[in-house]
Amino acid sequence: MAVIVNLNEKREEPQKPSLDRLFELTKTDIGAVNTVIMEQMQSPVLLIPQLAGHIIAAGGKRLRPMLTLSSAKLCGYTGERHVNLAACVEFIHTATLLHDDVVDESDMRRGAATANTVWGNKSSVLVGDFLFSRAFELMVADGSLDVLRILSRASAVIAEGEVHQLVTANDTDTKESDYLEVIEAKTAKLFAAATEIGPVIANRPEEERLALESFGHNIGMAFQLIDDVLDYSARQATLGKTVGDDFREGKITLPVVLAFRAADDEGKAFWRRTLEDMEQKKGDLKRATQMLEATGAMQATIDRAREYGAKARANLDIFPDSEYKQALNEAIDFAVNRFY
Amino acid sequence: MAVIVNLNEKREEPQKPSLDRLFELTKTDIGAVNTVIMEQMQSPVLLIPQLAGHIIAAGGKRLRPMLTLSSAKLCGYTGERHVNLAACVEFIHTATLLHDDVVDESDMRRGAATANTVWGNKSSVLVGDFLFSRAFELMVADGSLDVLRILSRASAVIAEGEVHQLVTANDTDTKESDYLEVIEAKTAKLFAAATEIGPVIANRPEEERLALESFGHNIGMAFQLIDDVLDYSARQATLGKTVGDDFREGKITLPVVLAFRAADDEGKAFWRRTLEDMEQKKGDLKRATQMLEATGAMQATIDRAREYGAKARANLDIFPDSEYKQALNEAIDFAVNRFY
Repeated sequence: MAVIVNLNEKREEPQKPSLDRLFELTKTDIGAVNTVIMEQMQSPVLLIPQLAGHIIAAGGKRLRPMLTLSSAKLCGYTGERHVNLAACVEFIHTATLLHDDVVDESDMRRGAATANTVWGNKSSVLVGDFLFSRAFELMVADGSLDVLRILSRASAVIAEGEVHQLVTANDTDTKESDYLEVIEAKTAKLFAAATEIGPVIANRPEEERLALESFGHNIGMAFQLIDDVLDYSARQATLGKTVGDDFREGKITLPVVLAFRAADDEGKAFWRRTLEDMEQKKGDLKRATQMLEATGAMQATIDRAREYGAKARANLDIFPDSEYKQALNEAIDFAVNRFY
Repeated sequence: MAVIVNLNEKREEPQKPSLDRLFELTKTDIGAVNTVIMEQMQSPVLLIPQLAGHIIAAGGKRLRPMLTLSSAKLCGYTGERHVNLAACVEFIHTATLLHDDVVDESDMRRGAATANTVWGNKSSVLVGDFLFSRAFELMVADGSLDVLRILSRASAVIAEGEVHQLVTANDTDTKESDYLEVIEAKTAKLFAAATEIGPVIANRPEEERLALESFGHNIGMAFQLIDDVLDYSARQATLGKTVGDDFREGKITLPVVLAFRAADDEGKAFWRRTLEDMEQKKGDLKRATQMLEATGAMQATIDRAREYGAKARANLDIFPDSEYKQALNEAIDFAVNRFY
């Protein structure tokens, strides 16, 4: 009897997916990355380290630089270049966050200006530019045109994706393919660049380079899909983040695309009112969440993330077993399953 | 008698300084630069070419790329790389303009949001990022780490200068040295980078590289000083630009720094009210202009520009006479004397 109870308990609380192994393996290197970040964001113009320090400290888990570091190690890299290049990746990510937080006149009139209120739009934009330029200076000092090509391409694609997202905002007619293009550009591209750098600096053959680029793309897609699910999930609150940001901003993410498609006339009218006309009232977020669940849109999005996760796992097949491979596989689990 | 009248007429209308020779000499190359610009700003996300096209068309005289083209030719360069690199310089300049136009919540509340009203803050920021990234992609394709070093450094310094300008805005205690640091960073640095590229791609010795870097710095300083004078001048209106933008934004430029220093208590109170507290009423711009003239602040700023012009001229001494040298010397005249 006791055994059965234990099994049941175990079934109810499966081991939570985590980035622990990745953290542990890259701990020393991430320390070095943080040192580079602190050094490189210095400026006699004090607002720069103040604002950059604020966002970089808040930035959290350093997932992208950890991927650069571990993909280099997976490829047997033994040098030191991965540290500075991981810092470049984090700087580009941070600059993107700062610019993504810029609010428009119209947002402010709607009273939605929650981001950027401490420092102001303009400081955020200019400090983002500074970090972005610093990233390129660091890459130039590293001296690899291959790396410069990868990250300048990624930066252009990210900007393109952000503009694309802007034009699809508030449009409930957004197609699934548009959504996928947006997240591929604004999220997955930097993941792919971060993981491609490893085999490049380790001078590994094309096959490994393509495999790790694909791995970064696929894990990035999975991450973003689950992020978009979490934004409508109570689970998000337990992660210390606010729920419903996308809803309040009128962002059209995959859960909404799928729910809108499945909705009847009344449902469609609800989505149009709340996300196109931006007329939101108390209880709307709750209703939206219920509709996303009831139409199966949440589960369908999670299933999509799982598919990308499976592809990411397959991308690692060509590499021999190692603790880094194991850590990257666990990172896929984390990307896909942190919903639970 | 008739002769004397003619002479007098001539004295009253001296030959106007112009960029005509520079335009003429770089005409074909600038055509090629414009083609590259048009190609490189394309994107399936249509808002990008729309917005970029708007600002690039409005951007005007292509002064910075002309300086890149002519400094290359001055150094005897006969290849084709100068065209793409001149386009990079213009892209970085355009991105800077777009980001400089971003307005803050506070500006909007003051009703000063004249810029960016068509497209919105966020589009401008993201399209700026796209152009900036494209510039780096073009440089990577060119393949010179030297050029990448020069322009990534310039970009970081520009961002630093823009933030510095932001923190000195509305501060009538701004020192002359602060102002000079700001314009050196936000304006002169890109001019210096634009002209340094010439000797770099022409593989010329360090001496020419340093001379043209200094030339760019000095002509850039002269340009910005006269720009800041023109903002308070009726001459500006004849150039088709609005007068008093800096005043309305509370920018502390050299004319204001010098006039504030020379002002009595009542004068200081005027500057504090209008530029620090931003309490501006009808007639204030006129009074400001009169005070700038009466205190000699306008003339002192023009004199400062002349000094930079003289230095720029001296920087060209080491180069043998050529039509390009003549065109660059006329560009200095234009920078300094377009006030008249």
